[in-house]
Amino acid sequence: MRPEQTRSVIALAMGDPAGISPELTAKLVTLDDVRAKAHLVLIGDIRVFEQGARVAGVTPAVKTVGPGGTPGTGDDTPLFIDLAHLDPASIARGVASEPGGSFALANYRHALALARDGKVDAVCFTPFNKRAMRLARPSYDDEIAFSAEVAGLTTPASEFNVLDKLWNARVTSHIALKDVASQLSNERILRALKLTNHCMRSAGFLAPRIAVAGLNPHAGDGGNFGSEEIEIIAPAVATAQAAGIMAEGPFPADTVFLRARDGAFDAVLTMYHDQGQIAMKLMGFDRGVTLLGGFPFPICTPAHGTAYDIAGRGIASVGASKAAVLLAAEMAGRPARAHAAVRAATAS
Amino acid sequence: MRPEQTRSVIALAMGDPAGISPELTAKLVTLDDVRAKAHLVLIGDIRVFEQGARVAGVTPAVKTVGPGGTPGTGDDTPLFIDLAHLDPASIARGVASEPGGSFALANYRHALALARDGKVDAVCFTPFNKRAMRLARPSYDDEIAFSAEVAGLTTPASEFNVLDKLWNARVTSHIALKDVASQLSNERILRALKLTNHCMRSAGFLAPRIAVAGLNPHAGDGGNFGSEEIEIIAPAVATAQAAGIMAEGPFPADTVFLRARDGAFDAVLTMYHDQGQIAMKLMGFDRGVTLLGGFPFPICTPAHGTAYDIAGRGIASVGASKAAVLLAAEMAGRPARAHAAVRAATAS
Repeated sequence: MRPEQTRSVIALAMGDPAGISPELTAKLVTLDDVRAKAHLVLIGDIRVFEQGARVAGVTPAVKTVGPGGTPGTGDDTPLFIDLAHLDPASIARGVASEPGGSFALANYRHALALARDGKVDAVCFTPFNKRAMRLARPSYDDEIAFSAEVAGLTTPASEFNVLDKLWNARVTSHIALKDVASQLSNERILRALKLTNHCMRSAGFLAPRIAVAGLNPHAGDGGNFGSEEIEIIAPAVATAQAAGIMAEGPFPADTVFLRARDGAFDAVLTMYHDQGQIAMKLMGFDRGVTLLGGFPFPICTPAHGTAYDIAGRGIASVGASKAAVLLAAEMAGRPARAHAAVRAATAS
Repeated sequence: MRPEQTRSVIALAMGDPAGISPELTAKLVTLDDVRAKAHLVLIGDIRVFEQGARVAGVTPAVKTVGPGGTPGTGDDTPLFIDLAHLDPASIARGVASEPGGSFALANYRHALALARDGKVDAVCFTPFNKRAMRLARPSYDDEIAFSAEVAGLTTPASEFNVLDKLWNARVTSHIALKDVASQLSNERILRALKLTNHCMRSAGFLAPRIAVAGLNPHAGDGGNFGSEEIEIIAPAVATAQAAGIMAEGPFPADTVFLRARDGAFDAVLTMYHDQGQIAMKLMGFDRGVTLLGGFPFPICTPAHGTAYDIAGRGIASVGASKAAVLLAAEMAGRPARAHAAVRAATAS
């Protein structure tokens, strides 16, 4: 054990109150392996949290403070920042609502502000309901846009999907399929490779092996079905390799995930949304973690949704939420450890 | 048992001689469940077949005839039409060659001609090697084009992927991704739905439940990321439904295969090659069957390739080849049985 390997401080924003988020938040606090790696700073309403604890059948110990509370030192008990903004009795289980969306948005905004201001090392949140978010804030687009606004981020950010040890990043995302090819460029692919490499190194991969998917069937079959592999993707991969990134490809999209699943790669960079999502969801991505990369701090959330159909029954699995917190803790703690390793290497 | 339910007569063309095709062909002949459903008419060179039998460690009984031989009646022994055109000693295992391609092409051409002329009910073949096929016939494009030429087919044909009980058909196939959207039309989607419905009914599905995938992420998210779902796909589905086809959709491509895998659908119609191939290969499509649909007779082959790396070791699994023959037998036998069922229903 290295003495400098202290726990990361993680702001955990409570998500949509009508789904499984309250019970998941309460369960997380009671997990020994979470507490070993992360000092949690929960953000929500203590009444919603306590109702979640009753549903989950757990008795989490937290130290409740007001909206101005910040994590101190020396106290091992998770902090609960009580924004006192939602009475759970006003929320119908399994129904997306404006108050539910406002609750989740306020918690998340508070968590992001703490991270932006250096009070915490990372941000996590339990699932949001997109409809509720849009009821609360009609202009709500997605987590990346909102987070960038609150955190004041002006550089590119990107969503990563992490399932066990396999990562998936994408060059384009929520655009029409007919526009994908024209959106690809050497620069965009290279930027995605650099961001993937950077985030994965933060997560503990020394030299992540990144497979790059082609765009066309059979990766273009030598130019027979499209030329983007030859003209755009292969040159971007070569440039990345020259920059020291362990990128390979382009590979046919219909077999690259089989190879990644068998351990040949740590990540797959896909050219468009469904190319990765079809594969990741079939492999069980609902058990996985969504990471927003490109921010000065990691932002992680379970990949699954609010599960309105099972909310309040205490049967929701906490596995993906735990994985989200552990990934955030790993990434937040990594820079310090990397520095320590450099110091150790230099001293020897 | 209905007396009219006789076995289908299936021409089985030997595939590439440098891979696992000879041993698979020999193994197939010895399988009781294959012989119960199909009267096999093998086409190749008896010397290549016998070498395959030695590799597989089996002693298949066949009745060898010359190139002009045709299946008779009453004899239960599989027929072997010996084209006497390849000495196995001239073929290096694991190497694609012009003689290997010529061998497979001649066998397949012979099988197609027998089916075209009504001498057999269906065609199967053990794996081809595309490189060898192109060495033998530089203009060789794919099985569909070659089969249509030999069979004199002028109407549309299409490839289907069948894994266990799940079928996948596609509207577009080997074209650049950037051209997919412009190739979609109400007419093409409707034609694919009708062909899928027809082929699956031939294979024993009374009313196959066909899920139609969208084109864009989240199936367009209500028109936010592309409008093909609204303008082209949904109207085609509605027209198919009005024609009595159990089609549904369009559904987001990244979850439709999860639902199909869980039994909600018998088939998924995808808009482009990788949309289906990514999913089917992850689900184990190498165990599955490729069916060429739209011909007057079924054409089936195992989905896997020639497996040059394990050729000659006798360890190749015959499972997918067996599934191919059984599907062909089922489809070839179905029309007769369907008529019998209609007669029985009318008489009662």
